[in-house]
Amino acid sequence: MNRPRVVIAGAGFGGLTCARGLKYTPVNVTLVDRNNYHLFTPLLYQVASALLDPGEIARPVRQLIRPLGHADFRQASITGVDFDGRRLITDHGAISYDYLVLATGAESDYFGNASLVEHTLGLKDLDEGLAIRNRILSQFEASRWTDDPEQRRALLTFVVVGGGPTGVEMAGATSELIRLVLRKDYRDLDINEARVVLIEAAPYVLVQFVPSLREAALRSLRRKGIEVMLGTKVKAVTDSAVILAGGEAINARTVIWTAGVKASALAETIGVQLARQSRMKVGPTLQVAGHPEVFAIGDIAGATDGGAPLPMLIPVAMQEGRYVGKAIRDALAYRDPRPFQYRDPGIMATIGRNSAVAQLGRVHLSGFPGWVFWLVVHLVNVVSFRSRLVVLVNWAWEYIFYDRPVRLIVRARK
Amino acid sequence: MNRPRVVIAGAGFGGLTCARGLKYTPVNVTLVDRNNYHLFTPLLYQVASALLDPGEIARPVRQLIRPLGHADFRQASITGVDFDGRRLITDHGAISYDYLVLATGAESDYFGNASLVEHTLGLKDLDEGLAIRNRILSQFEASRWTDDPEQRRALLTFVVVGGGPTGVEMAGATSELIRLVLRKDYRDLDINEARVVLIEAAPYVLVQFVPSLREAALRSLRRKGIEVMLGTKVKAVTDSAVILAGGEAINARTVIWTAGVKASALAETIGVQLARQSRMKVGPTLQVAGHPEVFAIGDIAGATDGGAPLPMLIPVAMQEGRYVGKAIRDALAYRDPRPFQYRDPGIMATIGRNSAVAQLGRVHLSGFPGWVFWLVVHLVNVVSFRSRLVVLVNWAWEYIFYDRPVRLIVRARK
Repeated sequence: MNRPRVVIAGAGFGGLTCARGLKYTPVNVTLVDRNNYHLFTPLLYQVASALLDPGEIARPVRQLIRPLGHADFRQASITGVDFDGRRLITDHGAISYDYLVLATGAESDYFGNASLVEHTLGLKDLDEGLAIRNRILSQFEASRWTDDPEQRRALLTFVVVGGGPTGVEMAGATSELIRLVLRKDYRDLDINEARVVLIEAAPYVLVQFVPSLREAALRSLRRKGIEVMLGTKVKAVTDSAVILAGGEAINARTVIWTAGVKASALAETIGVQLARQSRMKVGPTLQVAGHPEVFAIGDIAGATDGGAPLPMLIPVAMQEGRYVGKAIRDALAYRDPRPFQYRDPGIMATIGRNSAVAQLGRVHLSGFPGWVFWLVVHLVNVVSFRSRLVVLVNWAWEYIFYDRPVRLIVRARK
Repeated sequence: MNRPRVVIAGAGFGGLTCARGLKYTPVNVTLVDRNNYHLFTPLLYQVASALLDPGEIARPVRQLIRPLGHADFRQASITGVDFDGRRLITDHGAISYDYLVLATGAESDYFGNASLVEHTLGLKDLDEGLAIRNRILSQFEASRWTDDPEQRRALLTFVVVGGGPTGVEMAGATSELIRLVLRKDYRDLDINEARVVLIEAAPYVLVQFVPSLREAALRSLRRKGIEVMLGTKVKAVTDSAVILAGGEAINARTVIWTAGVKASALAETIGVQLARQSRMKVGPTLQVAGHPEVFAIGDIAGATDGGAPLPMLIPVAMQEGRYVGKAIRDALAYRDPRPFQYRDPGIMATIGRNSAVAQLGRVHLSGFPGWVFWLVVHLVNVVSFRSRLVVLVNWAWEYIFYDRPVRLIVRARK
């Protein structure tokens, strides 16, 4: 029972991979997360667009760590770190650690614009994904009650701000939900009254990709009926409109914000040095300066590669998690760990049915081949065999029947 | 376009069956419901006990009525009826009708006891089902944070009030969730600290059944570790205890109320004569006195059979729905409808794995045979082929692996 205590804050891809990496290490691991589940975030937009249900992209943390044997879980919101006392502070109490791994991820960044906080919907966790689904479906129902075409158009305009992978995927999925599925539900719907608008401040979507893939994605978005506004900034959002920097207004009741992301608020509260996007500065071994027993990984950590910050991506978090598992083993053996090195497996994004872009080193895929590649990679990585099966059934069902079975407006009451 | 307008208030089993019964009748049908889905209520307790997800027991109303051709849907809360103006009043506006079918179902009855309203959870709709699931799972998580065994016991005591089919099924499913599934998640859990208590005012559970089946159910409940308290009345519920009529208190943070049910509040607000459980008085042809163009069916209606009120059961609602479809056809043809007659197909309830009771006329089943019968009937009646498939996969998965995959605490935010 005198095993060193490793506390991992966050049960996302980084934290979970770290816990798994410590499977055969003589330590006791405690994972802490505000949710009781691990979320397969790449498919969150499919929950938001009524294609998948929460149970298909999330798994209880306790179930996932059961095979590890030495790991326990605690559900709590993490509020701080007592570095001197070596305790993680949560809203349910404190947990002592010998080693601490901070892996609480990222959250939406509204750049201090209160109107965005109040009037836009984020897409960072399952609760938000369900809120978006409820909102989209509710707008369609509400639109049936008005004879005023102006009002109906405002109800049926869905604005996605941010042309990164999340924004592109959400816009594509929303457009397909409307054009392929809801259109059949609403026989008296004038499809021209329903708009999906994607707003991006840069002059192109998917800035992370090479120009040819950006353009392929843009063409695909437009073919799917999405109005893409490039080089366009949002000044404010009200309950009924998006106000652009130029003063122009788009009447819309639903605005999804994917244009800003920063390290989880914990980074700002614990008194450590911050890098861009409020990410915690870490050394080449992912340790926090002055606290060699504290590591930071994933989106909350601002690890660099040749001076450039590593992107907020799942492969980064997973590789860092695995690395820290090894670094802790090294520390227990009084070995110095080698510096962390990131191996880039490539990036991808899907626009929808039969269309995705993938950039794998010098291999660039788009259109149908990109989509097949995207499909295989995501299906293989969905977190468990059972989910894989159910997700596959859902995808096949939608692909064949143009039908999304879970378009239900549900809230957990009380 | 001068077809008579039939407005059906409520898209439950009664309303939906009525709409389907009017498929070949030259009328326009508008279904109105506060939810955008039809719910397979017999399996709601499985959502509450983390076995099924909402998408598996609910289907969008618009999808279900699409094959009918002549039917439309409106989502709204129904607030009243303007009998003279022949308009159904909702929170979104009024809808004119030539024929009106009231089928808004039933709700929990707390008998005017405010402490029950405030501190118990109902199990009548999907939102409530998810709220119960969240509550049960959250209590287990919270219990890991306390060293006080008293407090832990209060967190882990789940009281179900009401020994009817809903209460029995909920108690059985909760007990199995704890003993078969959560027990593996919480390795340091002392199973003796977790209690499931079923409280019933009558001297037996399942009053609707013959004594031999009641006793079979009671034995089965006790074998599954449920503490059944018969002849026991609840006086009040606080945020931490159930106070019994005798003054005794059971420390519990989770109390599920299934002991009272009455017609949906609409019945009380529209100024019609009421029968027992606030159900609307209807004549032998299910018409509302003085308003031959208004019918009431299902739980909201107090139809009688030889003077005895028909129970609040799905077969009653469905047969009444089918009947009213025919009665409207008769009215359009200036024929007088024959009185409604109920054909009782039998009743059943499951206690859990390998155990159910079924009373089909003179055939009485219990134990494993009862359970197989229950399984087949429910699977056949789940509302669509796709749901049938997914529900079957979920059931098989749980039966084989003692695992409930959807034990996630999820809320739709905003």
